[in-house]
Amino acid sequence: MTQAIRTIEWSDDHIVILDQTLLPVTEVYISLKTVDEVIDAIQRLAVRGAPALGVVGAYGVVVALDQAAREGWSAQKLSGEINRIRTARPTAVNLAWGVDQVEGLAGQGRDKVFAAAAKLAADDYLANREMARLGADWLLDKIGNRPLTLLTHCNTGSLATTGWGTALGVVRELHLRGMIKEVFADETRPLLQGARLTAWELAHEGSPFRLLPDGAAAMAITTGLIDAALIGADRVVANGDAANKIGSLGVALACDAAKIPFLVVAPESTVDRSVKVGSDIHIEMRNDEEVTQIGGVQIAPLGTKTFNPAFDVTPHKYISALITEKRVYNYKEGQLP
Amino acid sequence: MTQAIRTIEWSDDHIVILDQTLLPVTEVYISLKTVDEVIDAIQRLAVRGAPALGVVGAYGVVVALDQAAREGWSAQKLSGEINRIRTARPTAVNLAWGVDQVEGLAGQGRDKVFAAAAKLAADDYLANREMARLGADWLLDKIGNRPLTLLTHCNTGSLATTGWGTALGVVRELHLRGMIKEVFADETRPLLQGARLTAWELAHEGSPFRLLPDGAAAMAITTGLIDAALIGADRVVANGDAANKIGSLGVALACDAAKIPFLVVAPESTVDRSVKVGSDIHIEMRNDEEVTQIGGVQIAPLGTKTFNPAFDVTPHKYISALITEKRVYNYKEGQLP
Repeated sequence: MTQAIRTIEWSDDHIVILDQTLLPVTEVYISLKTVDEVIDAIQRLAVRGAPALGVVGAYGVVVALDQAAREGWSAQKLSGEINRIRTARPTAVNLAWGVDQVEGLAGQGRDKVFAAAAKLAADDYLANREMARLGADWLLDKIGNRPLTLLTHCNTGSLATTGWGTALGVVRELHLRGMIKEVFADETRPLLQGARLTAWELAHEGSPFRLLPDGAAAMAITTGLIDAALIGADRVVANGDAANKIGSLGVALACDAAKIPFLVVAPESTVDRSVKVGSDIHIEMRNDEEVTQIGGVQIAPLGTKTFNPAFDVTPHKYISALITEKRVYNYKEGQLP
Repeated sequence: MTQAIRTIEWSDDHIVILDQTLLPVTEVYISLKTVDEVIDAIQRLAVRGAPALGVVGAYGVVVALDQAAREGWSAQKLSGEINRIRTARPTAVNLAWGVDQVEGLAGQGRDKVFAAAAKLAADDYLANREMARLGADWLLDKIGNRPLTLLTHCNTGSLATTGWGTALGVVRELHLRGMIKEVFADETRPLLQGARLTAWELAHEGSPFRLLPDGAAAMAITTGLIDAALIGADRVVANGDAANKIGSLGVALACDAAKIPFLVVAPESTVDRSVKVGSDIHIEMRNDEEVTQIGGVQIAPLGTKTFNPAFDVTPHKYISALITEKRVYNYKEGQLP
């Protein structure tokens, strides 16, 4: 059968990552043996996705320790280099988190750090596997024990994690069980993670799929082509509202109109109970060029202003359930996070 | 103030059109003096939009008559050349309709044909002006007499008609009255008519606007940024359901969730009372490359299959009102077409 893509692995004395900037046309794995190489890969988005960045941050500390030993760095130089990794993308909190999880162990030796980084990667992978199992069971239980047609948005697969996925991990699990009839993958404008990354993953593992413009999702859902939709989340708050890639809300509204399940699949670490309601989540607004240009081609008049939020918030009333590695929260039965 | 773009005009002895294939970056007007030039412009989509094609068909008959006189064509040759215009795009029923409206007058002389073609263009323009007036009045009456923030989808402006527009004609009318605060224009994947054409029209006339990914419309609408949304239609059927560019339905669902008006603006000729319900409308499915490539750039894995319907159908329950050149049909008050 199929193998999940391993987005990040440790091999001998270096990190190996799949260079996501070359997908979907070219599949190239690159080696990161120095701090400069680690930082370059992070900054040019060769590796992306919150869980993936956390693991790269942790393994990056190992790369720094090894380079320090080879080149005879001072403790001060080493500390500065690790901090350069920590801050390579200032807004990526998971990157700093990954560095912080392991750096404190440096006094106990390089192998302790390596073991902690490897555990962090393994934990992410195992959490994804557990979400996949819970999500697949939930869907087959609610919809019926038959091959399903599922719709998903953005990329929540191997390429966003260490190698399995959250919402797309559920799809992968169902595919392995022979329970996928077809996957409808939203292309996910403006950055086209669905077209570039999700389509590539689905093609890679031989899952039947179709790519669709985001605007076609409502028609697919309301005309009976789809059994359920499932997405990941960047943040889930105390009342169950979920922030995810822009376009998720429209999928949820269509599922509500069609009365089909709409699932959110995300690790417990995504649940932020310190925020009460979704409207309190700060939404990052991104630049105009992401919308007005595609692959360097200008598709709108020069100088065009845009409305380009990175995320939208789906109110809990449109969510059927939240799946984490710990449990299923059935919103419709009052089980909020 | 601003002038609407004239997409098609007769000038001296030829048709002048704005070449839409070069928008939004380059604004070039081209002259069509021969049947070959008319057909070429139609086939490479230099001119598009159902009303616009009807007018080009009618004026195209005048071009054929003039060329026949210059070059001494036989009646048989003339008839054959007119038929080539009629069938230049087999699925464009308005093109054949435009030719048929005027060809029968050829026996009464070239000037009779020209007058009929000019009347056809003028009638389209006047119908659009009337829709614009009715639509603008309706919105200001329902929402309040203040500058509005409106969301629209696809291109329903000068570029799809002879020079004013349907839904975008309402926006134009409000702009002339000083009643537009801002327009949110959906980019409208896959063919990006919003980014390429609507954004160009709005920039051209100095209307404040922002371009947004189709997936961002639900957030804009449900977070209170938008006063109302309005679209055109390719067909409206007896129960009021409306077929329009793919992505329209998602806008309607978001307006319903936000409880803001959702307007359909289209000429009476779009209303097809022979079809009872929207689910009976045949939806054209288009090719994969429209989704997997943008401007020649491959954005998805090679061989990717797509779900690429040209239109979706918005059920009447999500439509506040239909505006035609004759009247307003207030669906919510039981006034169906």
